[in-house]
Amino acid sequence: MVIGVLGAGQLGRMLALAGYPLGMKFAFFDPAADCAAADVGPQIRAAWDDQAALRQFAQGIDLFTWEFENVPVATVELLAKLVPGYPHVRALTQGQDRIEEKRLFQRVGMNVHPFAAASTLAEFEHAVSVVGIPCVAKSRWMGYDGKGQAVIRDAAQVAEAWSSLGGVPLLVEQFVPFDFEVSIVATRGRGGEIVTYPLTQNVHRGGILRLSQVPAPDATASLEAQAQRHAKALLNELDYVGTLAIEFFVRGDQLLTNEFAPRVHNSGHWTIEGAVTSQFENHVRAIAGLPLGDASLRGGPSVMLNIIGDRPDTAALLRVPGLHLHDYGKAARPSRKIGHVTLHPPSPDWRAEPALATLIPV
Amino acid sequence: MVIGVLGAGQLGRMLALAGYPLGMKFAFFDPAADCAAADVGPQIRAAWDDQAALRQFAQGIDLFTWEFENVPVATVELLAKLVPGYPHVRALTQGQDRIEEKRLFQRVGMNVHPFAAASTLAEFEHAVSVVGIPCVAKSRWMGYDGKGQAVIRDAAQVAEAWSSLGGVPLLVEQFVPFDFEVSIVATRGRGGEIVTYPLTQNVHRGGILRLSQVPAPDATASLEAQAQRHAKALLNELDYVGTLAIEFFVRGDQLLTNEFAPRVHNSGHWTIEGAVTSQFENHVRAIAGLPLGDASLRGGPSVMLNIIGDRPDTAALLRVPGLHLHDYGKAARPSRKIGHVTLHPPSPDWRAEPALATLIPV
Repeated sequence: MVIGVLGAGQLGRMLALAGYPLGMKFAFFDPAADCAAADVGPQIRAAWDDQAALRQFAQGIDLFTWEFENVPVATVELLAKLVPGYPHVRALTQGQDRIEEKRLFQRVGMNVHPFAAASTLAEFEHAVSVVGIPCVAKSRWMGYDGKGQAVIRDAAQVAEAWSSLGGVPLLVEQFVPFDFEVSIVATRGRGGEIVTYPLTQNVHRGGILRLSQVPAPDATASLEAQAQRHAKALLNELDYVGTLAIEFFVRGDQLLTNEFAPRVHNSGHWTIEGAVTSQFENHVRAIAGLPLGDASLRGGPSVMLNIIGDRPDTAALLRVPGLHLHDYGKAARPSRKIGHVTLHPPSPDWRAEPALATLIPV
Repeated sequence: MVIGVLGAGQLGRMLALAGYPLGMKFAFFDPAADCAAADVGPQIRAAWDDQAALRQFAQGIDLFTWEFENVPVATVELLAKLVPGYPHVRALTQGQDRIEEKRLFQRVGMNVHPFAAASTLAEFEHAVSVVGIPCVAKSRWMGYDGKGQAVIRDAAQVAEAWSSLGGVPLLVEQFVPFDFEVSIVATRGRGGEIVTYPLTQNVHRGGILRLSQVPAPDATASLEAQAQRHAKALLNELDYVGTLAIEFFVRGDQLLTNEFAPRVHNSGHWTIEGAVTSQFENHVRAIAGLPLGDASLRGGPSVMLNIIGDRPDTAALLRVPGLHLHDYGKAARPSRKIGHVTLHPPSPDWRAEPALATLIPV
């Protein structure tokens, strides 16, 4: 079975590395050059709206999926007429529109920040007054890793934020202080069966994930149960097939849902070593119609640290006890995710490891 | 760093799957079509003695290794003039000649079966009389997985065995009954550092490995210590860089060395899930000059079963608790290794699993 993947970044690369042992083959479609996944399978490099290239791609694959939630919906809809695709496109359309996403969360019983939509400066001013200051304005469509956001701490900043965000339609949400951040990764099979991974505690800096820990050091069993219930409800609501992630803010004993990603997720990278079956393998199993694997911990905790911008010395990293390296083979560039390490199990004094000093968020 | 691999079978495939997360790239050289490794890296398909193709191969790689011990020595010698290669060619020449191999074992203090060399029928008759009946005759060069062997149980079989083996130079060794079979896998780095994996107990049928178990159910601590000592001595004697395996017969509290493989080995496949660092990753680390990883058990025992000839139903396999599938993506053919499964940890009643019935040797 040849699985076509829209997007050829590190997530596609790790999907393929997890899927080859199941006997699958992989092909990628991505407009970009120097893609991380191009090492591990053929890439068709063409624009997302290149219909001839998409038809050619479809001819070489048995089914398709995506590793990147900002693939144009029209691309997925065209491809879905030619070859089966999972998850269903609905997960993409709901996730690409931050307002629809909030409504989806409310529909399945999740708590969200008070929010409002705005398409003009006047609407934006009104939305800010309704939601209250401080608040966060985000582009309604196509947000990714903290790009296209502005924090409003003063009414005088509204006009400036409007123009800095490019005058595009916005979601405005109340700025709610939180205690810490968690996420849950879960997979749903073609027959509706669901596995959920243990709750993961995350630390972001500048909108980019830096650190994940599992079990989540500060989470209670009640939070874990809430998150699992939410994940199941969302997967079922979307008739989802594959792996997804939901990010939450924790305030007291409450989860406030931030966003979901209809794909394998950075906060689930620890599952490669830390879970019996990784999020990547379970995504492949799900879309291929195979039984899902055990998502429980493979004994002991895991710590995941992203490698952002600069590549630390490989030899120094590999000397850290319990460290597993995942170098995506990408050129180093400021703010670019070029790899991650998983400590499984982390040594008691992992935070003092000199080789990890540049990776640990302060 | 681009690593060139001579041979593009499943061992090359698993080397690449283990090496990509270290940021390595892979290229393969193999005369055969439909190679298992061709999914995970470009393959130059040319004869082993095609000098132009080898030069082209050398231009695209930073160093080379092999996954197949019957690569012609001349191929390795030519390539080694163009680009660094590990292990050193000596490991190949010593392993390809069964007589030299026996002498090597004796030199480093291992016990071997009484043996003799024979290049003519008269020498063969003499060798059989010296070694004693029953004995096993094996082609002196280029043996692989039980091909080119004959058991002599009666002096009248000698002439027949001589012609059935093609009149080639032979090793004749005493047939020594044994209690069970074990192997040890070990890796040596460029700086001489060594890690050894726990002793593995193996079951062969028809000269093909069927089952490996670790920890070895029937082995004593003394056997384990002997095997580790032998592995270290052999690695040092060969100034070896990379992963190798040594197969032993156990008789009482003694190890009788059967053969070594100067490469990653089928009896080390369990290390992918069952060891902290797999034999494949450690081979890549060693040849790339990186620190070696922890070769100890990752908690709990492992059982490895080869998939030979027929491909069992994938979904049925994936429902077995603790099972990890490694399908090499090869066409099914009688006696062909097309995959393996690792049970980590095996459930207490794994031998009763219907999905494993065709895989478990009887």
